Amino acid sequence: MSELPILVVGSVAIDDVETPAGRRPESLGGSANYFSVSASLFAPVRLVGVVGDDFPEGHVQQLGERGIDLAGLEQVSGKTFRWRGRYASEGADAETLDTQLNVFETFQPKIPAQHRDTPVVFLGNIHPGLQSDVLDQIDAPRFSAADTMNFWIEGERDALCQMIRRLDMLIINETEASLLAEEKNVYDAADAIRALGPRIVVIKRGAYGAIIFHPEGLFVVPAYPLRTVIDPTGAGDTFAAGFMGSLAEQGAFDFAALKTAALYGTVMASFACEGFSMDGVINLERSDVEARVERLKEIMSF
Amino acid sequence: MSELPILVVGSVAIDDVETPAGRRPESLGGSANYFSVSASLFAPVRLVGVVGDDFPEGHVQQLGERGIDLAGLEQVSGKTFRWRGRYASEGADAETLDTQLNVFETFQPKIPAQHRDTPVVFLGNIHPGLQSDVLDQIDAPRFSAADTMNFWIEGERDALCQMIRRLDMLIINETEASLLAEEKNVYDAADAIRALGPRIVVIKRGAYGAIIFHPEGLFVVPAYPLRTVIDPTGAGDTFAAGFMGSLAEQGAFDFAALKTAALYGTVMASFACEGFSMDGVINLERSDVEARVERLKEIMSF
Repeated sequence: MSELPILVVGSVAIDDVETPAGRRPESLGGSANYFSVSASLFAPVRLVGVVGDDFPEGHVQQLGERGIDLAGLEQVSGKTFRWRGRYASEGADAETLDTQLNVFETFQPKIPAQHRDTPVVFLGNIHPGLQSDVLDQIDAPRFSAADTMNFWIEGERDALCQMIRRLDMLIINETEASLLAEEKNVYDAADAIRALGPRIVVIKRGAYGAIIFHPEGLFVVPAYPLRTVIDPTGAGDTFAAGFMGSLAEQGAFDFAALKTAALYGTVMASFACEGFSMDGVINLERSDVEARVERLKEIMSF
Repeated sequence: MSELPILVVGSVAIDDVETPAGRRPESLGGSANYFSVSASLFAPVRLVGVVGDDFPEGHVQQLGERGIDLAGLEQVSGKTFRWRGRYASEGADAETLDTQLNVFETFQPKIPAQHRDTPVVFLGNIHPGLQSDVLDQIDAPRFSAADTMNFWIEGERDALCQMIRRLDMLIINETEASLLAEEKNVYDAADAIRALGPRIVVIKRGAYGAIIFHPEGLFVVPAYPLRTVIDPTGAGDTFAAGFMGSLAEQGAFDFAALKTAALYGTVMASFACEGFSMDGVINLERSDVEARVERLKEIMSF
């Protein structure tokens, strides 16, 4: 076991979220934020992102206290990226009500010199051009993965395809996989995406779990059984965090390591759904995670 | 291993089905028909149902040649039950365009005396009153299960609840489980249904697999990976056939036996989807089934 550091780039945001369970304005969010907090349970995390001068100092401090390396977190004058969204019902996709890019509009990720040899890289859901900029600044990572969304698939397909080509793994949800691949069947969609470059594709299916498509075969992981979903915001980033965190912790990237990682991703996502914003993950102990991984293995065992 | 006989009651039908892959008029269908053909790969099957004088003699002969006991299959004067339906897209629910009950309108299931001690009973999707009539005529089966549908949940809830109370296991799809239980969350719905009587609930989730809810815990089985879905008609009955067939073959009904049975149900359903009507299952060899069960175990193994 050799715990490798992970570099993550993505958004750090202030969200205003409404779900059937209620509303939470001024809540901490953003892909890199969710990812860092969760992945830091598994491995050292290096965060690359930007916040404005309105970003709560207390949260930056909290990130630091978790051992997250903030050398790549710029603080600039102006307002932090803000997202307002609503989930009409449990299981529904988020409806974006408002996006204010603010300091994110001119964000150019700069990887601190001491982080350029980071062996594990995760490109959170931001403009694919920026994701490529990060890859340009890293010296041949041992393992790279990214997430994306319908907005970039529809509006920035070329930039997205150029970025995807360079990845080891793409993590994407089922609807977006079909949109990207122009294939309705999930197995056909995964093949088409692998033909774009990444050896490995992980397709997330929300409450139905996820499928790992690997050159050696498939692995299907069910969702962790949840009775209460308070707020699914960040569940995808938290899934990625558990997944990449487990890989970095294992220091291995073969099919067996990916299967273990998928269990951790699934469990981390389940915690994220159980509270608004980061409530579900911020106080997690590693033993809480292990207990759910054991239970997940149980419900899959024949 | 002691292979137990299974008694099945349900519809025997002539279907007219349209899917994105094409249309097949005058095709063999009906829950008991699908079930018998598939379950006969695993255990002796006793079919209880009714057909009219228009039912193809060749198919009755074919059922007999598979060793299906037809003592309980009435042939009466009139037309066979007919169903016409359409699937608007892959994965969509069937839309019923026309139903002609015909000889089914006055059907009263009569269990032949020699079948009254059948140890394993499956009540296919018909009026819950008729399902209860069958249970009345069977001497304390070792294991009983039933399927149902939204039509009976909405129109015959009392009769349905009376029937369900007497079962060991209810097999039901996710939407119908929510409708019956008046619970949106699938885990809450399963609990509510188990509170109605059956110790075991199997919730089918189409292309996402199935969950077994058992007093000892959950078991989640993914769908068999399919690239081509020609016609999903009968997939639920075929799932039940593989499930019940495997239980009867094992001669065991504990949680471990149910898990194995779920794998066989899943695999049988996958074959059913790959052809119109019974094309996908009628010529199956047991070795075809075993090959898919092995592959299914592989994609679930960590």
